[in-house]
Amino acid sequence: MAQPPQPLPAYAGFQHFVVTSPGPLVAHVEIHRPAKLNAFHEAMWLELRGVFRQLSCDADVRAVVLSGAGDRAFTAGLDVTAASEGGPLSEGEGAVVVDGARKAAKLRRHIAEFQECISAVERCEKPVICVMHGIAIGLAIDISCCADVRVCARDARFAVKEVDIGLAADIGTLARLPKAVGSQSWVKDVCLTAREFGAAEALAVGFVSQVHESKAAALAAAVGTASLIASKSPVAVQGTKELLNHSRDHTVEDNLRYTGVWNAAALQTNDVAAALMSGLKKTRPTFEKL
Amino acid sequence: MAQPPQPLPAYAGFQHFVVTSPGPLVAHVEIHRPAKLNAFHEAMWLELRGVFRQLSCDADVRAVVLSGAGDRAFTAGLDVTAASEGGPLSEGEGAVVVDGARKAAKLRRHIAEFQECISAVERCEKPVICVMHGIAIGLAIDISCCADVRVCARDARFAVKEVDIGLAADIGTLARLPKAVGSQSWVKDVCLTAREFGAAEALAVGFVSQVHESKAAALAAAVGTASLIASKSPVAVQGTKELLNHSRDHTVEDNLRYTGVWNAAALQTNDVAAALMSGLKKTRPTFEKL
Amino acid sequence: MAQPPQPLPAYAGFQHFVVTSPGPLVAHVEIHRPAKLNAFHEAMWLELRGVFRQLSCDADVRAVVLSGAGDRAFTAGLDVTAASEGGPLSEGEGAVVVDGARKAAKLRRHIAEFQECISAVERCEKPVICVMHGIAIGLAIDISCCADVRVCARDARFAVKEVDIGLAADIGTLARLPKAVGSQSWVKDVCLTAREFGAAEALAVGFVSQVHESKAAALAAAVGTASLIASKSPVAVQGTKELLNHSRDHTVEDNLRYTGVWNAAALQTNDVAAALMSGLKKTRPTFEKL
Amino acid sequence: MAQPPQPLPAYAGFQHFVVTSPGPLVAHVEIHRPAKLNAFHEAMWLELRGVFRQLSCDADVRAVVLSGAGDRAFTAGLDVTAASEGGPLSEGEGAVVVDGARKAAKLRRHIAEFQECISAVERCEKPVICVMHGIAIGLAIDISCCADVRVCARDARFAVKEVDIGLAADIGTLARLPKAVGSQSWVKDVCLTAREFGAAEALAVGFVSQVHESKAAALAAAVGTASLIASKSPVAVQGTKELLNHSRDHTVEDNLRYTGVWNAAALQTNDVAAALMSGLKKTRPTFEKL
Amino acid sequence: MAQPPQPLPAYAGFQHFVVTSPGPLVAHVEIHRPAKLNAFHEAMWLELRGVFRQLSCDADVRAVVLSGAGDRAFTAGLDVTAASEGGPLSEGEGAVVVDGARKAAKLRRHIAEFQECISAVERCEKPVICVMHGIAIGLAIDISCCADVRVCARDARFAVKEVDIGLAADIGTLARLPKAVGSQSWVKDVCLTAREFGAAEALAVGFVSQVHESKAAALAAAVGTASLIASKSPVAVQGTKELLNHSRDHTVEDNLRYTGVWNAAALQTNDVAAALMSGLKKTRPTFEKL
Amino acid sequence: MAQPPQPLPAYAGFQHFVVTSPGPLVAHVEIHRPAKLNAFHEAMWLELRGVFRQLSCDADVRAVVLSGAGDRAFTAGLDVTAASEGGPLSEGEGAVVVDGARKAAKLRRHIAEFQECISAVERCEKPVICVMHGIAIGLAIDISCCADVRVCARDARFAVKEVDIGLAADIGTLARLPKAVGSQSWVKDVCLTAREFGAAEALAVGFVSQVHESKAAALAAAVGTASLIASKSPVAVQGTKELLNHSRDHTVEDNLRYTGVWNAAALQTNDVAAALMSGLKKTRPTFEKL
Repeated sequence: MAQPPQPLPAYAGFQHFVVTSPGPLVAHVEIHRPAKLNAFHEAMWLELRGVFRQLSCDADVRAVVLSGAGDRAFTAGLDVTAASEGGPLSEGEGAVVVDGARKAAKLRRHIAEFQECISAVERCEKPVICVMHGIAIGLAIDISCCADVRVCARDARFAVKEVDIGLAADIGTLARLPKAVGSQSWVKDVCLTAREFGAAEALAVGFVSQVHESKAAALAAAVGTASLIASKSPVAVQGTKELLNHSRDHTVEDNLRYTGVWNAAALQTNDVAAALMSGLKKTRPTFEKL
Repeated sequence: MAQPPQPLPAYAGFQHFVVTSPGPLVAHVEIHRPAKLNAFHEAMWLELRGVFRQLSCDADVRAVVLSGAGDRAFTAGLDVTAASEGGPLSEGEGAVVVDGARKAAKLRRHIAEFQECISAVERCEKPVICVMHGIAIGLAIDISCCADVRVCARDARFAVKEVDIGLAADIGTLARLPKAVGSQSWVKDVCLTAREFGAAEALAVGFVSQVHESKAAALAAAVGTASLIASKSPVAVQGTKELLNHSRDHTVEDNLRYTGVWNAAALQTNDVAAALMSGLKKTRPTFEKL
Repeated sequence: MAQPPQPLPAYAGFQHFVVTSPGPLVAHVEIHRPAKLNAFHEAMWLELRGVFRQLSCDADVRAVVLSGAGDRAFTAGLDVTAASEGGPLSEGEGAVVVDGARKAAKLRRHIAEFQECISAVERCEKPVICVMHGIAIGLAIDISCCADVRVCARDARFAVKEVDIGLAADIGTLARLPKAVGSQSWVKDVCLTAREFGAAEALAVGFVSQVHESKAAALAAAVGTASLIASKSPVAVQGTKELLNHSRDHTVEDNLRYTGVWNAAALQTNDVAAALMSGLKKTRPTFEKL
Repeated sequence: MAQPPQPLPAYAGFQHFVVTSPGPLVAHVEIHRPAKLNAFHEAMWLELRGVFRQLSCDADVRAVVLSGAGDRAFTAGLDVTAASEGGPLSEGEGAVVVDGARKAAKLRRHIAEFQECISAVERCEKPVICVMHGIAIGLAIDISCCADVRVCARDARFAVKEVDIGLAADIGTLARLPKAVGSQSWVKDVCLTAREFGAAEALAVGFVSQVHESKAAALAAAVGTASLIASKSPVAVQGTKELLNHSRDHTVEDNLRYTGVWNAAALQTNDVAAALMSGLKKTRPTFEKL
Repeated sequence: MAQPPQPLPAYAGFQHFVVTSPGPLVAHVEIHRPAKLNAFHEAMWLELRGVFRQLSCDADVRAVVLSGAGDRAFTAGLDVTAASEGGPLSEGEGAVVVDGARKAAKLRRHIAEFQECISAVERCEKPVICVMHGIAIGLAIDISCCADVRVCARDARFAVKEVDIGLAADIGTLARLPKAVGSQSWVKDVCLTAREFGAAEALAVGFVSQVHESKAAALAAAVGTASLIASKSPVAVQGTKELLNHSRDHTVEDNLRYTGVWNAAALQTNDVAAALMSGLKKTRPTFEKL
Repeated sequence: MAQPPQPLPAYAGFQHFVVTSPGPLVAHVEIHRPAKLNAFHEAMWLELRGVFRQLSCDADVRAVVLSGAGDRAFTAGLDVTAASEGGPLSEGEGAVVVDGARKAAKLRRHIAEFQECISAVERCEKPVICVMHGIAIGLAIDISCCADVRVCARDARFAVKEVDIGLAADIGTLARLPKAVGSQSWVKDVCLTAREFGAAEALAVGFVSQVHESKAAALAAAVGTASLIASKSPVAVQGTKELLNHSRDHTVEDNLRYTGVWNAAALQTNDVAAALMSGLKKTRPTFEKL
């Protein structure tokens, strides 16, 4: 990656995200507001949804890497200044006595749309590998919980920060983090105290599955993994992502039934023959677009 | 904690539990039957429910620490002697041929009430940090699985002991332990063999999230964590507990929807403004009672 | 185990599995096709179901050990050569234009039966301890996820191999593995890349709960654990397995209710009295067949 | 019922409910505030819970009839005057700017307790037959949806009245009514418009299963049905209620599994032999208390 | 049907069921123990499972009619005499004090297998139309609830009879009946009282969807409907049955997702083109075996 | 309605739907392709989503009526000619051997989007009353099942038509119809046979809740009901719709919990006071926009 790859033209219209292709069939999405520690305002999460919806349908992409621009932060989360000027966090104040039910309806719609934007990362049909470094707090946890694989640099400083600004995290962390790691005692600890935790602790509890020396090393490893995934049958890879996501929220029996129906179509592919053949011949198979 | 705090007057009526306040807005509940290794008989679990129901509504409490009195045990679990004299464990014997269905109805109601008493710890709206030391077997596991955070002293000796007295644990361990830790192979191992495991193993699998040198150190750390939690917005903290508990038993999608409705009211609080302001001013915010 | 135990006569009719009894009330099932790395063809998984259905009802068996014959492999998974000659993996090819819906129906029924055979290990009412060594890929993961406890030898080489042959694993790995271990980042990593992982990694994420120096040592330890389990009340042990399996796919509240109903009958056993008595007398209790 | 039965002494302490026994093993609960159309204030629903908890445990009761005192109303629902003076309906007003989150917490706890009181009717282990006449609106629907069987007099005038006072029904109607009748178009119609509907319409959609000429006739029929139920094995009857309630909120498969476990104990009763014998001998069996 | 059709040779081995083909691709299964009012003993329900498993796989059958032989009864349900001689209903008696837990295990396995046999009717991939006449009580309701369509003769006399013999119905009625009809008040009434109900009442609540003058008329109508169904695309028909069965036990959203995956394969059929073409040409399409 | 109301300017951009306001706060959406019996092609269902998304957010609309233009049909469903030229129904044919898995992926995405468009009617926050007349088949059933209330004219001719064109209905009928009416026997009958049914049958099973003499009468009644709903508190009405929709897919207990949280915010409205006051004063309350 001596020469930074050129932005992909199809994604050039996005303002806050830079999308490049560091290798065949791999896209790299960079949150790009380094001057503000990649903090998010509303236009950014709307755009995030746009980026991942497009990637989900882009037949030239088979795996995605997501990271933050600059040295200091994956993302510092919600841009609190922006939020307190017009968004939901400004709702508590105000001199006017308003109707609480109407305010609640407005807030609920706002939260639902915000959640839906972040969930676009999870709904992307292609695997997403999230690379975290530096400051990675608040929304950083919500977003990374939507990724399939999480890796980080040794300097990463994580926190489920929301209680420190007077609210329960509502964009996905409390829904997904307990299902992403094994120790519920640890989940409660970090969510109730908002305390910082580092790369080693994140690895020990399984929040990330790899820690690397630096952001560059973590990114290189993620691109390597993404390239490996992208070299395989997209029918197999995207089916695997779908079935694993389904399993989280369904019983084993429901998942087995769904899997049987899914593979009844998915096995009608030439990729199996191609994969078996290249296995025998020790060649690299080519798989048709999906 | 050189000087032990005085029992809180509002909780002075309980016989088997001592409730003190080791810090502002923090309650410390001590299981208090040290001569019998804090083993439980029926009056005790009925009282445990009473203690935690009261704490749940007590606006002067924002975090709870739960531990066992004495040096030797958090609790040795069910007082088997008491139980075999009149409770469910005495049902298998008896010379009289009784109606199995009627006996079952009696047992079912007994178990349901027992479960409901222990679940009061989980249902307490305030976070509960459980500190375990010494012997912590049988009911110790059921109870601690209802806590939010589990820490222990290095001398803790745990066991899911029930199969050794001829029964499957039925007060919550088999329901909650598999969802509290990540390794199901380990869960099956300790539940099927009733073998002892220590602090290190408990930490490795995520059953506890901290191990301390001694009971005193563990208690001090728990009080520290509880105090930290108690210093934050109770709207944020109690919402976080509720949403995390909800997430365990619901799909991500259901949890997101519930979260949106929850926060539509919770964000209509002055705590957000107070927290943001004190963040800017580096002051310590004060939050109204909840 | 200097002298290999004799095959149990009641299981002598099976072709691909050797069933012996290494200790009282313990059965040892060996996958027995070492010349082919214990790879599975259709007759084998049909037989696997037969073995475990029989064990489930066999009142002389209270715990089961499952391992693979030979030095090289627990199992290399699906016998791809056999599968590509007539099974589902051969469906993608073929010059004839066939009706995709009808092909799908055939595939769906095939997968459902295959799943049902492997699930017989999970449905066996007696605890199953799976001992893995050497190559343990593909179907090895599906099968071992149905066991209650997983241990391995240091030389074990695991992989969720299916994407490498162009398909999403459909015999249970994607349904059960995410619920067997805590780190979803790790699960996605190994399932999407098909990369190999070893004993240490398997232990770290909780996929196995013990690693031993050699296959022999792992087997000895598993037999020891199985013997310990077999020495306990079968009412308690089988109830524990049932309730833990139920808990995985139900809410805590549903599980507590089910548990109460279950134990309302299970506590009407003489085993409780026998266990308590032998606990007091330091003798070894004997429990009636179940 | 020429002579009104005497109140049962064990229930004499209740202020707003009169409990009599119109026949062997049958209890009749009368909502008793006829001067106010049996409208409910908080003390009444707390007491309703008390009555039904006690009936649930009362071995001398095997079936319950619930009706309203006086000629004019089963119940006119919530006593709006009382509610607007101190309860949740008074929360919208008020000159003081309060913290919306704290107000919400108070309301949520209030609603939860109110729901829990009404649900006591459903949780009563004995079948409950609800007899409705005259005005039966608002809370009348919430309560009757908790009963097992609903019958009414021809003069009954029903309404899901809540939208007319500015709120969505929150004490159970919206949860249970859609599952009690078959036509969702009808459910939405009556819940969204708050329009009145009569006995004939209630019968046509299956909300009630019998319509009688008068309150007296409806009550007599209900007592007749209750007496019939009370004459049967309580093991069979209470098991049937439990399994039907379980079925509403679980899949068929879950219910079958739960049923098997339930009946594994319930069939160990002498009632089956007694029932079979009396069937052969054409005698009336006597069943032991449950 | 002047000439009774010949038994189908492939089903000639069954002792208690006569299987004929009253029209192309239609099978008619007759419960055949008219001398005993078609009452069931264990060998019969085991055989029932065998019949429907075979029909499920039989590519020459696309719709099934199920009825009872003789004039008097669809089926009088469980053969109580046989059951009390060795089955679960004999378990309550007995002079020997036995272990209640072990008896429960035996009963539970017995019930599970009994349930599984009856559920074979529901699991049959082809639609099943159940024709009831005369006595149709107890097991008659369990069985008919597994059918897709229920019709009856005017003389049908139904009852959920189990409470009259001291037990809660456990072979499916309490799981399926509440989901088959709309009025829960009616379901509770008939299940708790065991009272008889006739054809008109069955039609009014939606338990049956047609009532005919006589058994012969009902059978003729059912064969007509079965023939109509059998004339349509089996891909469409069997998919419709599967998706409707799935919908009963899943949320709308889950069902939509499952449906999309199902039809992604099912739409790859020539049947759509064939059906559209024959619609245009007013010809009768022929559909390939499934 | 002598003078047809003018199209609402805000909805003038839609090509296939005419949106007018027949009364205060009421919108009337007319499917407008009468020359083709209002049959749907892809652009239409995409537009349907647009219309209902806009209505959902339009604070000037509190209730919606949906009907079809012209005398002959509510809608004849899918425009099969259009569909067979490029959509999913054309996928079965084709001389080229294609990859079945890739075709399935394309179909699955197509179905998912189609479902999502129709579901917009259900997701609209305002109640929707669907008025059906004449031909109402195929997609007509999918769409009307998303409405809250269904009424029809006497001439309505319904059919779940999909099996007649070789496919299982996949746009919502099989998911929602079984939950909209009470008789599953009837649901299976009409879905498996594709037979026509009329207004009387639709009323008897509860599919519609009113039948009127003519389309005009049905429309007038629907507008009347919509106006009544629109005159009530929108906080109450929209909460009622949300909670009823939630109840369909959740247990009673889950729904009660969700309801409590919902109303904790919704009760903080001035609408309750306004409604109570106008009830006392017999005036018509005015409610603020929501």
